[in-house]
Amino acid sequence: MNQKTICVYTCNRSEYSRLKSVMKAIEAQPGLALRIVVGGSQLLERYGMTVNDIENDQFVINEKIHNVVEGSTPAAMAKSAGLAIIELTTCFSRIQPDVLLVVGDRYDMLPAVVAASYLNIPIAHIQGGEKTGSIDESIRHVVTKFAHLHFPATEQSKDLIIKMDEKPHRVFVTGCPSIDTILRITPTDRKVLFETPPIPSKLGARSPSADQDYILLIQHPNTTEYDQCYDQMIATLTAIHRIRLQTLLIYPNLDAGSDSMVAAIRRFMMKYECDYLFCFKHVPMETFINLLRYASCIVGNSSSGIRESCYFGIPCVNIGTRQKNREHGSNVINTGHDSEEIYQAIKKQLEIKRYPVEYVYGDGNAGTLIADILSQSDIKIQK
Amino acid sequence: MNQKTICVYTCNRSEYSRLKSVMKAIEAQPGLALRIVVGGSQLLERYGMTVNDIENDQFVINEKIHNVVEGSTPAAMAKSAGLAIIELTTCFSRIQPDVLLVVGDRYDMLPAVVAASYLNIPIAHIQGGEKTGSIDESIRHVVTKFAHLHFPATEQSKDLIIKMDEKPHRVFVTGCPSIDTILRITPTDRKVLFETPPIPSKLGARSPSADQDYILLIQHPNTTEYDQCYDQMIATLTAIHRIRLQTLLIYPNLDAGSDSMVAAIRRFMMKYECDYLFCFKHVPMETFINLLRYASCIVGNSSSGIRESCYFGIPCVNIGTRQKNREHGSNVINTGHDSEEIYQAIKKQLEIKRYPVEYVYGDGNAGTLIADILSQSDIKIQK
Amino acid sequence: MNQKTICVYTCNRSEYSRLKSVMKAIEAQPGLALRIVVGGSQLLERYGMTVNDIENDQFVINEKIHNVVEGSTPAAMAKSAGLAIIELTTCFSRIQPDVLLVVGDRYDMLPAVVAASYLNIPIAHIQGGEKTGSIDESIRHVVTKFAHLHFPATEQSKDLIIKMDEKPHRVFVTGCPSIDTILRITPTDRKVLFETPPIPSKLGARSPSADQDYILLIQHPNTTEYDQCYDQMIATLTAIHRIRLQTLLIYPNLDAGSDSMVAAIRRFMMKYECDYLFCFKHVPMETFINLLRYASCIVGNSSSGIRESCYFGIPCVNIGTRQKNREHGSNVINTGHDSEEIYQAIKKQLEIKRYPVEYVYGDGNAGTLIADILSQSDIKIQK
Amino acid sequence: MNQKTICVYTCNRSEYSRLKSVMKAIEAQPGLALRIVVGGSQLLERYGMTVNDIENDQFVINEKIHNVVEGSTPAAMAKSAGLAIIELTTCFSRIQPDVLLVVGDRYDMLPAVVAASYLNIPIAHIQGGEKTGSIDESIRHVVTKFAHLHFPATEQSKDLIIKMDEKPHRVFVTGCPSIDTILRITPTDRKVLFETPPIPSKLGARSPSADQDYILLIQHPNTTEYDQCYDQMIATLTAIHRIRLQTLLIYPNLDAGSDSMVAAIRRFMMKYECDYLFCFKHVPMETFINLLRYASCIVGNSSSGIRESCYFGIPCVNIGTRQKNREHGSNVINTGHDSEEIYQAIKKQLEIKRYPVEYVYGDGNAGTLIADILSQSDIKIQK
Repeated sequence: MNQKTICVYTCNRSEYSRLKSVMKAIEAQPGLALRIVVGGSQLLERYGMTVNDIENDQFVINEKIHNVVEGSTPAAMAKSAGLAIIELTTCFSRIQPDVLLVVGDRYDMLPAVVAASYLNIPIAHIQGGEKTGSIDESIRHVVTKFAHLHFPATEQSKDLIIKMDEKPHRVFVTGCPSIDTILRITPTDRKVLFETPPIPSKLGARSPSADQDYILLIQHPNTTEYDQCYDQMIATLTAIHRIRLQTLLIYPNLDAGSDSMVAAIRRFMMKYECDYLFCFKHVPMETFINLLRYASCIVGNSSSGIRESCYFGIPCVNIGTRQKNREHGSNVINTGHDSEEIYQAIKKQLEIKRYPVEYVYGDGNAGTLIADILSQSDIKIQK
Repeated sequence: MNQKTICVYTCNRSEYSRLKSVMKAIEAQPGLALRIVVGGSQLLERYGMTVNDIENDQFVINEKIHNVVEGSTPAAMAKSAGLAIIELTTCFSRIQPDVLLVVGDRYDMLPAVVAASYLNIPIAHIQGGEKTGSIDESIRHVVTKFAHLHFPATEQSKDLIIKMDEKPHRVFVTGCPSIDTILRITPTDRKVLFETPPIPSKLGARSPSADQDYILLIQHPNTTEYDQCYDQMIATLTAIHRIRLQTLLIYPNLDAGSDSMVAAIRRFMMKYECDYLFCFKHVPMETFINLLRYASCIVGNSSSGIRESCYFGIPCVNIGTRQKNREHGSNVINTGHDSEEIYQAIKKQLEIKRYPVEYVYGDGNAGTLIADILSQSDIKIQK
Repeated sequence: MNQKTICVYTCNRSEYSRLKSVMKAIEAQPGLALRIVVGGSQLLERYGMTVNDIENDQFVINEKIHNVVEGSTPAAMAKSAGLAIIELTTCFSRIQPDVLLVVGDRYDMLPAVVAASYLNIPIAHIQGGEKTGSIDESIRHVVTKFAHLHFPATEQSKDLIIKMDEKPHRVFVTGCPSIDTILRITPTDRKVLFETPPIPSKLGARSPSADQDYILLIQHPNTTEYDQCYDQMIATLTAIHRIRLQTLLIYPNLDAGSDSMVAAIRRFMMKYECDYLFCFKHVPMETFINLLRYASCIVGNSSSGIRESCYFGIPCVNIGTRQKNREHGSNVINTGHDSEEIYQAIKKQLEIKRYPVEYVYGDGNAGTLIADILSQSDIKIQK
Repeated sequence: MNQKTICVYTCNRSEYSRLKSVMKAIEAQPGLALRIVVGGSQLLERYGMTVNDIENDQFVINEKIHNVVEGSTPAAMAKSAGLAIIELTTCFSRIQPDVLLVVGDRYDMLPAVVAASYLNIPIAHIQGGEKTGSIDESIRHVVTKFAHLHFPATEQSKDLIIKMDEKPHRVFVTGCPSIDTILRITPTDRKVLFETPPIPSKLGARSPSADQDYILLIQHPNTTEYDQCYDQMIATLTAIHRIRLQTLLIYPNLDAGSDSMVAAIRRFMMKYECDYLFCFKHVPMETFINLLRYASCIVGNSSSGIRESCYFGIPCVNIGTRQKNREHGSNVINTGHDSEEIYQAIKKQLEIKRYPVEYVYGDGNAGTLIADILSQSDIKIQK
């Protein structure tokens, strides 16, 4: 039988959680051959070398693309993109994929789509058609227009893709594959969770305590507002500082503005000696989901707050425009970057404690659905 | 008063004819400062060094970007794109444009849009929303999703842009600026036209004759069918060979497949000693429009056949899928790449001779309209 | 009068100290116009953004080249070089220098030399002909073979350059311009020095004390042994740990291996809570020279230990092969990467306290000499 | 047994003739594994796609690197070099060679040497230490300083390499491997030679005649004089035009200046209708050597004129500075770019007819010698 070669490209820790169940399902499909190309911040020490998570899950990585030009300015991001296109061209020419499979809306994934497009390789896109507030939305819709096969997570997303003049018979609502993974993660006992790296401090210093309630804080730079990222981070930290509940903060991603957010975190901690605040470069997905499971509230602008928290009924305070229009459950309160507003929202959520569970982004079978469709589809480059 | 800096990027001879009147109008607008960046095949000897046309029109070019990786394969095109993004990042960082203005749907223009997008530079797009058959259509719609300000040529195009979820108040029907230029070109006497370079042979060899009727032939590679380009060119030449009317052929553009089309032309001419066939690397736009004015028929798959011929009522035989769904006047017959079909269509058109004039793509004021809107708009990077 | 344009390229903090006096002298020469291009790690936050030192000295920087591909592996260094050549080609094409002036032997400077060479720009080279142990020596001699005008620091270096078949009338012994700067730095009072940033801790934490003797420690990665850098750093720290004298450590440069050296430093400090050890990302040159002036001993493999310490008679322990064959004064003891050997050497040097001053690398007029020769020379690209 | 992996990089038709016998000998050596990387103009249609010669000789090419930026200006050459370094870094990282083997002195080969150097891959260099007049000499000596193992062709070259401070025990006089190939080429009957492609015209047009004497003309651009290349070509053609003996001209290589040389040839031929002149884009090496065997004189500035003609006693007129100081037999007359001087030299050589055979560049066993030394050497990256 003639296998179809599906090449997955991932360059960012947030993507892998949404690709994992699909990759497992592709591997399990006899009609499909999986190729994995990893690039961008996944390969960098400074971002926790998250490529290790993929290898720890027993995947074989076919190529690693070092393309990040240092600086975390928009110009450095743009040059990284140029370099990625050059390298991925050679890489895809060698792998000769029948389909390139990508997820989401990240600027650093765009070069893979552009390279594939020049090389006449059909593109399949997971998570198209979602509406959010940040510039990621432009990229998401741009990728939709590049793509030949669409796997939106919700009916509402499907409608937008078709409205954008994509062929209806090429659009399949599958749910979001990140949910597959989440629903399959074994709950860890809370005590065990807090005793497992990377949560406890390595060096005898203070560690977060399993016995106390805690906030989960993840705030990424909004690249169109990257000169305001410092102040935005300070506003959030100031609100948290008033709450003074134990807080587990996960570092921002590689986008323009992240350097100043990291600086904001460091200076705030030094100034106020925030003994309730614990910072992590990267936590494995399993750990993250279990942290989410027991959290009193998730705060920031990560898509996890919107997409995954509803499955556990965890209260979410979603700050700023980065996720503005995203579909969400009733567990989310949206705020601006105003410290008082954030404070009030967190306070309110902490009082509510838990919301009813909702299945907004699918029921956990997205990976298998996507692999099946990939194996049966006859994709042509001419749309 | 604070001027807005509008940066125009052009990398292909076909773009300049659609940018010229806009560029003139921007220069004339006190509220706007024009910056011109030229790249791609416009700078190559092999493609007639068409950058000279721009300089001959008294424009000052701010930067020239040499980015073409030799080979005319998809991989070479992709690497050229990567290189262009790297160079344009540095270039745009120096120029600091308020808006990047681009036209159309060419693969080689995409890097400018990607670079601007990473750099948070708003993008204005001329000629979005048109439907055609080739992969250019994907690029056109991709650019629409990147763009912040839209200048479609027709109401039908405007509707598609809005359908694709762009904000209606950001979409302006202006007509196509190429028409501005065309309607302003002074008709040259046919005899003079055929005595002016580059039409007559430089070296005492045979030259085309003003006294005979002639076909204008322009066939570009369709990049998604680039392995069929050789055969497609031969099919057209075979049809022309049966007609045996004097034919002026203009060489294909730089896209993947062009090398084999040039090879097809050369071999066909050597094999059949086609004394009715005259080939030109590049003709200036003025010459081209005057050649179109007197042509008995325009044959091939150039957008000129569709867009400009209706203004003169010239019969057009449009071959293959490259312009398949494009709006056109009643003067166009569409055919496949079948030699017999092409032959019959040309024969029929030659009998009809002339069609009534139609104004499909605007009435010749697009440039001024676009410059006015650019000067008055308040464009934000967040869509 | 027709000015000659001299373009200086610097991409590394260690280079600027050797270029500063030459740059000042070029600016002062009416026959010369100075252009400054800065790239590499000088532009990176992670390396102290040392470009600021240049601007603080009132120099105008003409272009900044962001070219560092993140990773600090040999492959990342090689790609950074490729990217630098692409960018510098555009940069030099715009600046059109009559001469490119570079200093020393660093891998990250090589791209400037290669780009200039392709562009037929003559190259002037400061500090050629020196013998050292590391791979830098290859680069230094490679640059000599690329260069058209040579400014070695010593007669011994001149002899080697001529032996390598360079024309004797193109080789001028000028002394090393770093010495010009050093001899002109006003001695700061030791107490004041220790109260001036960046020496005191910003945040109320422990600061080094002006009242205690101290060791100055600077150890860079040796790129040909970059997999041993971790162990080499640990060996040095272990020796220092036995001495337990107050130690000021300056972080390694950007070369392959630096990441693991930084890791070694961090882990060692965490394990042993080294309260005598103070780390600095970057100290301005003036501060550095004043620190050297009062140091009890300089330890590591920086060229400063060899080249500059003799002017103050400061004992130096030079570790490993990085500076192996470099000319030096009687104040240097060479050791291997053996912890015991390093310990014994430091101990011995601390007992000796001070050596007589020696003028090994010139008498402080190199900058003026070089500018004069540049202004008078008639350099041809054909060697 | 542990095989050593030898990676050969070639990017230019002239290199392959000097690598072929070495590559065959490496393949035959059980201790060595051969890897072949081809780049640059060898992959371009415009330069005769000479990579086919390598594949026709039954070699397996491991990677093809498309890196040529179009334009044939110095800036395009420099950018091609930058792109080559980026691509070769990835390529060498995958192949992991123990040694990179290169030949000669070409600008377009330098990126391979630079990339290998950054990657700590030892470099072996064939044909170092030769003196010539052009800028190639700089590159040759630069490569010598990068290289770890040297295979010069003559004792005189060996002496220069050692004088340049390379270790004598790393320098081996092997003769030039191009001679191995030449001495093994079976003489083709002159009549057969002129009937074998590419010599006869394909299309019934005029072909060169086996019955007439002929001159072999190969003139390459001298990159440091690239603005004079047009005039230099015209001077040579003018001299040939006075001789009016049948002349077989082989097109110049890809270096800066080649475009204007090709233009000079075309215009000269059109102006004077030179019916004695036959042009070839590329002739296979076997054909070339047999053409040399029967030529009345070889004219131009190719190294073949100097290096290979002495083995057949063919008179050579060597024009300009490109080969100025190269060791040669008594069969060579050197001239400037003066048409009269060239004419007189050709006339004199045509009268002499044949010189005695001389073995200047070895006796035909260089390939085997080099493979043996590679297999036995213990090469270290630290020189």
